[in-house]
Amino acid sequence: MPERIGKRTLNLPNRPVITASAGVAGKKESEGPLGEQFDYIFDDTTAGEKTWEKAESTIHKEAIIRAKEKSGKDFEEFQYIFAGDLLNQCTGSTFGLRDFGVAFAGIYGACSTMALGLCMAGVFVDSGAAQACIASTSSHFCSAEKQFRFPVEYGNQRTPAAQWTVTGAGAAVVEAQGEGVHIEKVCFGKIVDLGVTDANNMGAAMAPAAFDTISSFLEDTQTDVDDLDMIVTGDLGVVGSRLLCEMFLNEKGIDITKKHCDCGILIYNLEEQDVNSGGSGCGCSASVLCSHILNRMNSGELKRVLFTATGALMSPVSSMQGESIPSIAHSVLLVK
Amino acid sequence: MPERIGKRTLNLPNRPVITASAGVAGKKESEGPLGEQFDYIFDDTTAGEKTWEKAESTIHKEAIIRAKEKSGKDFEEFQYIFAGDLLNQCTGSTFGLRDFGVAFAGIYGACSTMALGLCMAGVFVDSGAAQACIASTSSHFCSAEKQFRFPVEYGNQRTPAAQWTVTGAGAAVVEAQGEGVHIEKVCFGKIVDLGVTDANNMGAAMAPAAFDTISSFLEDTQTDVDDLDMIVTGDLGVVGSRLLCEMFLNEKGIDITKKHCDCGILIYNLEEQDVNSGGSGCGCSASVLCSHILNRMNSGELKRVLFTATGALMSPVSSMQGESIPSIAHSVLLVK
Repeated sequence: MPERIGKRTLNLPNRPVITASAGVAGKKESEGPLGEQFDYIFDDTTAGEKTWEKAESTIHKEAIIRAKEKSGKDFEEFQYIFAGDLLNQCTGSTFGLRDFGVAFAGIYGACSTMALGLCMAGVFVDSGAAQACIASTSSHFCSAEKQFRFPVEYGNQRTPAAQWTVTGAGAAVVEAQGEGVHIEKVCFGKIVDLGVTDANNMGAAMAPAAFDTISSFLEDTQTDVDDLDMIVTGDLGVVGSRLLCEMFLNEKGIDITKKHCDCGILIYNLEEQDVNSGGSGCGCSASVLCSHILNRMNSGELKRVLFTATGALMSPVSSMQGESIPSIAHSVLLVK
Repeated sequence: MPERIGKRTLNLPNRPVITASAGVAGKKESEGPLGEQFDYIFDDTTAGEKTWEKAESTIHKEAIIRAKEKSGKDFEEFQYIFAGDLLNQCTGSTFGLRDFGVAFAGIYGACSTMALGLCMAGVFVDSGAAQACIASTSSHFCSAEKQFRFPVEYGNQRTPAAQWTVTGAGAAVVEAQGEGVHIEKVCFGKIVDLGVTDANNMGAAMAPAAFDTISSFLEDTQTDVDDLDMIVTGDLGVVGSRLLCEMFLNEKGIDITKKHCDCGILIYNLEEQDVNSGGSGCGCSASVLCSHILNRMNSGELKRVLFTATGALMSPVSSMQGESIPSIAHSVLLVK
């Protein structure tokens, strides 16, 4: 059962296994550097649906079905799905998985949801509360633009620090037994709010949360950055990633630049694809982790990866009311 | 550590304890039958804030602070807060607890959130992942009306089956050791959607989910309804409660009417307070459980209570797009 180590980290001695995973994405994502690695591409990002919200649910559903099929299990064999997303009232998830008949533990962590779901699934499996469960999340460029910014048809200008919401989803099957990448430790984040109010600069808002959680993890576990093959953040983008590296250098004297990469930077050709600071959205880190990163781990190329997804916990209403952006990051130590 | 029993239920052999709890509410709720029982009343439902969303965060925060103070602990002694609410992107929670410095595991279960939080906290404490944590949620009549229906100033008509969103919040401290009400078993719900599309009749949409989870719990644990002192649902209201009782009678041949009550009915004088089918909102079951119900248990008046909060997992957008209302219910067996 889970062991608390240090202040914030949990060691999972039974080493829950990610036995299968699937990352699905849209057309723009298929044109990026990871295009070949996704399990499925929706060339038509309406996914055959009449609304963007329904499209996101369909994409989310597809990721879960593909991960489930790769695991060789039936839905009846899963005890829980931990899922959430950025749509109001998390409808990307609730409508996406309502037909599956699996107990649903709804989670909310904005773009940190994939890591939060893995933390939850890890604790549940390690403690014996579950034998098999699924962690998943999604985002859709058009449903996110419509909800958080402007309708896509409006063609608004984007600032240099803005990020491009990924159309995609990821799902991971976490089991007590099996072959795959193990969840060795998890570290739940606390809310960090340094007063950034610019909703077009999420990277700056979220970087301090990533710094807080990664620092806590390293201290709690007495891990040296060199012990890790990779520290992969969710969607800090170019601006947030630079800030994170600077914070580690300035506050801790640690250079993480050689180990750090960010799903929001990995998923697009930043210059060619006109995505400004990089990708974002729950589906960004979810689709990249559940395809590219886990593929590299399963092939043995990467052995110890600290997956840290970050979330900006504001809403359009809170931003319009002049509020700053509370942020959070959750970390999962993945080991092959 | 948690033991899976039957298909869906978890037995928590270490019997996590609710060592303290606090329910806070607004003026209208103070005028209902439970008015005396709340830990604090916001006579001014703006809570001194300039917006309804900020007011909800303040009310949420107040419930957490009061529960924490009753537990005699400092925030540093808590490992997790499990919280969520109905505002877009759960800002009632995220802004309410951003100052506490406790790891935040965001959850989303609409009005089932209090039960979902207790399920999570129960599993985490039982498994040793936490020694002490908090489960909390909130709702506010005006922020909910604004977001889900019409601005309050518009003065729209309400249908007979409509419910009145409670202004209130509840927080429960769950610990490994101590005096109080024990969490003996938990049962996470699955999404049930029988095709109800009327967003003014949440009770009808949610009753089948309550039926599904309570039935599963009774079967898994081979519990007879007579073994329980009370089955308390979250906010089915008059319409949903009647449907739930009818479903048990028709499908199972079990009369639950003598054991069943509903927080949405308990909290108001239905006729005098003009609340139609009763109270609703995350804060409804949270404030009633964390004051009235737990008070009655702590005094020894009630010994075995099945707390089952229900949630309607739609959004205004999904309803406008003609979608039905997926619903969910989570159950917690509380024992004194």
